[in-house]
Amino acid sequence: MIVEGKQLQSIWLDDEDKGLVRIIDQRYLPFQLVTEELRTPEETYRAIQEMHVRGAPLIGVTAALGMYLALMNIPYDIIPNTYIRQTANYLKSARPTAVNLGYAVDLVQDAISSARSIKEKTTKALEEAKKLMNSETENCRNIGLNGLPLIRQISEAKKGEPVNILTHCNAGWLACVDYGTATAPIYMAHDQGIKVHVWIDETRPRNQGAKLTAWELAQHGVPCTLITDNAGGHLMQQGMVDIVLVGSDRTSISGDVTNKIGTYLKALAAKDNKVPFYAALPSSSIDWGSARGSKDIVIEERDKNEVRYTEGLHNGKIKKILITGENIPVSNPGFDVTPSGLVTGLITERGICKASEKDIKHLFPEKT
Amino acid sequence: MIVEGKQLQSIWLDDEDKGLVRIIDQRYLPFQLVTEELRTPEETYRAIQEMHVRGAPLIGVTAALGMYLALMNIPYDIIPNTYIRQTANYLKSARPTAVNLGYAVDLVQDAISSARSIKEKTTKALEEAKKLMNSETENCRNIGLNGLPLIRQISEAKKGEPVNILTHCNAGWLACVDYGTATAPIYMAHDQGIKVHVWIDETRPRNQGAKLTAWELAQHGVPCTLITDNAGGHLMQQGMVDIVLVGSDRTSISGDVTNKIGTYLKALAAKDNKVPFYAALPSSSIDWGSARGSKDIVIEERDKNEVRYTEGLHNGKIKKILITGENIPVSNPGFDVTPSGLVTGLITERGICKASEKDIKHLFPEKT
Repeated sequence: MIVEGKQLQSIWLDDEDKGLVRIIDQRYLPFQLVTEELRTPEETYRAIQEMHVRGAPLIGVTAALGMYLALMNIPYDIIPNTYIRQTANYLKSARPTAVNLGYAVDLVQDAISSARSIKEKTTKALEEAKKLMNSETENCRNIGLNGLPLIRQISEAKKGEPVNILTHCNAGWLACVDYGTATAPIYMAHDQGIKVHVWIDETRPRNQGAKLTAWELAQHGVPCTLITDNAGGHLMQQGMVDIVLVGSDRTSISGDVTNKIGTYLKALAAKDNKVPFYAALPSSSIDWGSARGSKDIVIEERDKNEVRYTEGLHNGKIKKILITGENIPVSNPGFDVTPSGLVTGLITERGICKASEKDIKHLFPEKT
Repeated sequence: MIVEGKQLQSIWLDDEDKGLVRIIDQRYLPFQLVTEELRTPEETYRAIQEMHVRGAPLIGVTAALGMYLALMNIPYDIIPNTYIRQTANYLKSARPTAVNLGYAVDLVQDAISSARSIKEKTTKALEEAKKLMNSETENCRNIGLNGLPLIRQISEAKKGEPVNILTHCNAGWLACVDYGTATAPIYMAHDQGIKVHVWIDETRPRNQGAKLTAWELAQHGVPCTLITDNAGGHLMQQGMVDIVLVGSDRTSISGDVTNKIGTYLKALAAKDNKVPFYAALPSSSIDWGSARGSKDIVIEERDKNEVRYTEGLHNGKIKKILITGENIPVSNPGFDVTPSGLVTGLITERGICKASEKDIKHLFPEKT
């Protein structure tokens, strides 16, 4: 998508230097656009662990490219196969709970296993990492194409007046490689000249809406307005939201959507005000197992300091301040589960379906 | 209520110095407990205007005492009646939208109108201001007594396990003189040895939950946990909330509750999870006119910088930082309307009633 007037992705390979991966160091957004060079698995590990990059698809692609960087930097004093195995485990440990971090590293390991020379393994690793990067981009692009008609229909019904879309957290290209998930239909609508306007929940406690989604939409030229997480219900009551589009970290086969904490409250308000509520997600995030509903899914309790402290700009420098009493107990659940009954539909790379086991399986028959 | 082990109110008259009113300067909470001396109407005006004091009942009491301070400081070069009239208008203009600021000043003006001497007017003003202060305290105390059985019943049903109460914003004694509204039943239950635990919404953008409610409950020894505004729905799904208690800035005769932005979202979640949802309010905040519902009530759009900036402690000093992109458009509605259908009941100084015109009028027949 567009940043400072130019096309940019969240991660890319340098055109000339074959041993160089570049990322946006997202910790500085929206205050500074910092790009970072990754040349080693150690730099890759740090970028993942310290959240220079975040978002499931992006973490996976970064780790896959980290495996390629490892092969470009085989040391002289260790058996290459041992080094590759150790590096794989090392990269996987950067954020142990990120499922597709392990998946991406395994993909590369499988792809290189039959290659005999380091040179051949290196070529295969790069191919596999690029394939993953392209498939993540392609999935997001298809989510965009599949979600676009929803926005177009509202636009036509409103006779070209701006379509007001509410989104929560960052399900944008900064979490993926390009397009994003919830944002993909929005970017496509905007690029096709359909008038849109996005209400962005700031998304406490980490403020990914305020810091990332607002930045990427504004950079691309999409009209948007930042609101507190408290405001969306009121806006829906006032008829100021036409559709809610969110991402999903994990969707159960029954259609229950686990996403950033607070998503459920917006789904309730959408239902109460007859506003359509869609989750946009690649099928890789569907849990084909038996877990479903808010009773089954264990929600991660995150670091209390995310609530206690916040970061921002003071005299041009990024500072972290304490915004609560020092000793006050805090609870910080990271996600919530929106029951399928509140979800109008799921937008996937293969099409839109209802949030029900029957319809999900109909769209992905090979999974049954 | 208790602060640092001692009884404290949000405003009080000095025991010895007859021309001295003391307040807690709430801008420094929870980081510092600063008390401030008010000796003149100018100091009173500044305390109201710059929000050293906030909350409708407290603003009213402060202004009434400001009128008394004016009478204690009649200048030599102006006709006293002119000065009193001018001071009344001056104090009313400190926060023009605060309805009971004007009401409180008018009360004092009416009370002193028939008095002949400045001395007599001064005595009457003090009497009237004290009367208002006492009646605000008494209303809150009665709201507490009336709401207490709700908590006791849950406690009994849970066989003495802690009653989990969720609250939003600050409807505590810091907004009133003592007890608070939504907090009054909580303090009374706690003081009677009923085990309670309070989930406190931080309440963006001004964080009155995190900064004020958490401070006052913790000071009084009430077990509590701070959460983001996004978390409450998830907690209700998990069965971790037994009752929601909020305040109300304005309640329509039909039972619709206008309160701090985000209240509506918690009411939706309460309904969805069969958690009782009560608003606690003095009848002075009931709007006996015809306005009702989210379509009728005009919601104040507040300063965008409340969303863009936040205050907290950095190296022991209170600092204000920018937490969003500099040029991002912001919308900041201050309140929302919770439709009566989501409100289990209203806790008033006269008793509990259903959120309906019939039941409200039954409790306050003199208003019909």
